[in-house]
Amino acid sequence: MKIALAQLNYIVGDFGFNRTLMLEKIMEASGNGVDLILFSELSICGYPPLDLLERKVFIEKSTLSIETIAAEMPDNIGVIVGGPEYNDQKEGKLLFNSAYFLFNGKIEGIFRKSLLPTYDIFDEYRYFEPGKEFKILEFKGEKIAVTVCEDLWDDQPVENQFSRSRLYTINPMNELMKYQPDFIVNIAASPFAFDRQRVKRDIFTEKAKKHGIPVFMVNQAGANTELIFDGGSLAVSSDGSIFQQLKFFENDYAEFELEDVVNYSSKSESRLTDRIKLMHDGLILGIRDYFQKSGFSKATLGLSGGIDSAVTLALAAKALGNENLHVLLMPSQYSSDHSISDSEEMAGNLGIKYDIIYIEELFNQYKVLLQPVFLDKPEDVAEENIQSRIRGTLLMALSNKLGNILLNTSNKSETAVGYGTLYGDMAGGLSVLGDVYKTDVYELANYINRDDELIPINIIKKPPSAELRPDQKDSDSLPDYDVLDTILEKYIEKQLSDDDIIKEGFDAETVKRVIRMVDNNEYKRYQTPPILRISSKAFGVGRRIPLVAKY
Amino acid sequence: MKIALAQLNYIVGDFGFNRTLMLEKIMEASGNGVDLILFSELSICGYPPLDLLERKVFIEKSTLSIETIAAEMPDNIGVIVGGPEYNDQKEGKLLFNSAYFLFNGKIEGIFRKSLLPTYDIFDEYRYFEPGKEFKILEFKGEKIAVTVCEDLWDDQPVENQFSRSRLYTINPMNELMKYQPDFIVNIAASPFAFDRQRVKRDIFTEKAKKHGIPVFMVNQAGANTELIFDGGSLAVSSDGSIFQQLKFFENDYAEFELEDVVNYSSKSESRLTDRIKLMHDGLILGIRDYFQKSGFSKATLGLSGGIDSAVTLALAAKALGNENLHVLLMPSQYSSDHSISDSEEMAGNLGIKYDIIYIEELFNQYKVLLQPVFLDKPEDVAEENIQSRIRGTLLMALSNKLGNILLNTSNKSETAVGYGTLYGDMAGGLSVLGDVYKTDVYELANYINRDDELIPINIIKKPPSAELRPDQKDSDSLPDYDVLDTILEKYIEKQLSDDDIIKEGFDAETVKRVIRMVDNNEYKRYQTPPILRISSKAFGVGRRIPLVAKY
Repeated sequence: MKIALAQLNYIVGDFGFNRTLMLEKIMEASGNGVDLILFSELSICGYPPLDLLERKVFIEKSTLSIETIAAEMPDNIGVIVGGPEYNDQKEGKLLFNSAYFLFNGKIEGIFRKSLLPTYDIFDEYRYFEPGKEFKILEFKGEKIAVTVCEDLWDDQPVENQFSRSRLYTINPMNELMKYQPDFIVNIAASPFAFDRQRVKRDIFTEKAKKHGIPVFMVNQAGANTELIFDGGSLAVSSDGSIFQQLKFFENDYAEFELEDVVNYSSKSESRLTDRIKLMHDGLILGIRDYFQKSGFSKATLGLSGGIDSAVTLALAAKALGNENLHVLLMPSQYSSDHSISDSEEMAGNLGIKYDIIYIEELFNQYKVLLQPVFLDKPEDVAEENIQSRIRGTLLMALSNKLGNILLNTSNKSETAVGYGTLYGDMAGGLSVLGDVYKTDVYELANYINRDDELIPINIIKKPPSAELRPDQKDSDSLPDYDVLDTILEKYIEKQLSDDDIIKEGFDAETVKRVIRMVDNNEYKRYQTPPILRISSKAFGVGRRIPLVAKY
Repeated sequence: MKIALAQLNYIVGDFGFNRTLMLEKIMEASGNGVDLILFSELSICGYPPLDLLERKVFIEKSTLSIETIAAEMPDNIGVIVGGPEYNDQKEGKLLFNSAYFLFNGKIEGIFRKSLLPTYDIFDEYRYFEPGKEFKILEFKGEKIAVTVCEDLWDDQPVENQFSRSRLYTINPMNELMKYQPDFIVNIAASPFAFDRQRVKRDIFTEKAKKHGIPVFMVNQAGANTELIFDGGSLAVSSDGSIFQQLKFFENDYAEFELEDVVNYSSKSESRLTDRIKLMHDGLILGIRDYFQKSGFSKATLGLSGGIDSAVTLALAAKALGNENLHVLLMPSQYSSDHSISDSEEMAGNLGIKYDIIYIEELFNQYKVLLQPVFLDKPEDVAEENIQSRIRGTLLMALSNKLGNILLNTSNKSETAVGYGTLYGDMAGGLSVLGDVYKTDVYELANYINRDDELIPINIIKKPPSAELRPDQKDSDSLPDYDVLDTILEKYIEKQLSDDDIIKEGFDAETVKRVIRMVDNNEYKRYQTPPILRISSKAFGVGRRIPLVAKY
């Protein structure tokens, strides 16, 4: 049996686009004598459709689209495609998350997802009833265990779940093994997290090894809003060796003779990709798809002379093309000379159009107008924020006038502690670095400069500063970034308490101050732009902390 | 048996505060000879705790707090309190959502929620494993069916779920009736929706009638971030008559002789409260609790001369006290004379401090600075937005300098169609009217004016205008609000498709234009402040539409 994995980039709700993409691959596969071609989870509508699943017309279009594929595809090839299935029972949730098996013009079988991830960014129990039947697909003499994504994740190592070992009370593969299947199919939509690369590989190799049969896993590629799907689809042999892994972050396609995969064995463990390269490539895909799928091509941002805007610009230039960027330099009386010269050098290195607007006069005028309200109160964060909001207003004006999307340049460290101005530097249509800690922003900068000095070295070397008052430095208000980022990672990703972190040897006062800053700034993060998610715990939809609470 | 319902206003995560509140009521009840006192769902930690439930220390504090109540409460009174329960099985989600029965210093029984709402604003499957055991509480000779909120909602009318009749596959009361209980206890945390008043009452009267035993339901009171819990706890007799309903929107407490409730019968159906009064009282509670629980007392907003800011101001004055408001009037060259005089009259009526800041000069300066970038492009929405963002910047400056929270004044109609400026009039810490359609804003204004003309009649009568260009009217860009709001309600609340709405007789082009506006502005709503939720489908956490999608 010849099996094909079609790792594709879908647009949520664009049924025509998704269907055409799949039909092209089916034709190609059929021409090559493929017996069974696999598409990823909910491929018919793109993942994640979220509340569009609650709309009747969305489900109708989805079903019609699957029927259209069945009708238009050639005979003698089997197709597995993911789609929502209307639950026609009187009870339970409206839908199942299903794998449809198409053959000879018809839907010949439906296999329902049993384990519904409902944690972090996943809300599947919101829409779907879990499948409770376990059955096997018999096709061209092979017995196939058809599973949908999380169905193979019953044994995942659960982080931050105290001492629990398993999230779920059932194990679909144990049920399916009763039928003695010849191999496992898993159609997935598994988003990228740089810190989950090993887990995402081991899940499949371990399952193959445990059951002694191959696994064919096909993942979605491409980004939808904040979620980046990294592809990396897998063909794993019966002993858990990786026969082939498809490309990361792009469409890919591969065909396999089942027999070759069954018998393959390798002693050497395949290497993991460098995490900074993964972040880099993932972010570029995230930017590109956000723009392309929204019908935009041009971006703007404020180039401050600091490392965050420099890295954001370099990534955006790679994703969108230098000619599609038009940035602003907006110095004030507090800006250092090098902030302008470094920014000009940066824009020059990449050949990017820029304008300089001096904001001092506007800033002074705000202060004059507010004097009757502020009276003789000393300058404080209010005046700092005015400068930041003037810049936000200028950037949004450029965005509105020229049709460019404003890219937000805040990093995860400052987003965490609230070191940013709402409607000022926190503005934008998309946050590029909001899931990248400052220490990793430096690593990204070095990676970007691996061949040429695109980012002037002075931008990387200078001490970070918001330049909103004379001689301001980040280190006036914040611990050193290596300490800060370590504490943040323990609090946010690992969900440790202040006591836990202090016990690990960190300064008690620093830990308490950092955590207080994180907690007190939930309200700012409530209003941030969507943040490209590259870790297993990003700010945004995957982290839901009440604004009004004491803890 | 004497039963008490304690309807209280908890702070999420403030274990000391919540515990003290409960212990006071337990002492009072015990003094009055009460046998069993009921507190609402997750009362120990406040509802909704969201991802705080993923923190080990939060669960430990919660458990300790329940044990402290058990240790400190008097003997001979039974207490039912809601709290998260650690799931000590090896499999399944980390927690149960449980009702703890305390008696004589100990936890004497635990009853686990079986139906976990995971739709709209509810995410309970994210945290909890459903209870699968059904058992009865035997106490002082009575057999009691102890249920948690949604456990009684198996028969709810499911809206927008196509033709489904039930969300769940099990019915907890059918299981519990096997033990022939004498009455039903339901501890709830059921948020307010003005359009669900009847449903929220009928669920309990129908359950009592169906099983022929009384229902004692205790709900949470008070608001937590965007969710307003309206109380209205119920004692329902065996034939479904309402023996007593506790107050809406405030703490309340009542004691009942079981026998009185069992035998009570009434032919007259209790009246529903006027929906505008409900909205009005709910919004005031929502504002007050957002401030009080965050430790803030003062608010600001921009008073434009329009109805939205006037209604917001009147509600805020009621919630926070006139003396805690300090507003800005920020006219431009496009402002009508009456926008200033009406605003001054409005502030005068309420005795509210205000300042006037003319923004024309700032606006001109932005245009001068942007001229080298914009060149000779004609004025358009970019310039309109600059004005709105100048106002946002001034209001945030006042907020930052004086420690006032900026109240957002956008209504649901304009939020829906994107008739607002991100970082301008869409800014703020809390959106007061973001779940109130414009036509209801008028009704709220009339209700506010029911005794005195607090809102100048001219503000109510004038045609709505953003006043961002000469002679602008809302009706230049939008359909009449009665048509607009009807279409919006069908699209957003009822989730009908364009074709469905057109079939009901609305102009096809108008429907398609309105829906296009709603869809194209998801990105703005992604960044709005939390919106006080008063309907069954508000923008915010309860409505999750992908930003990047085609549909």
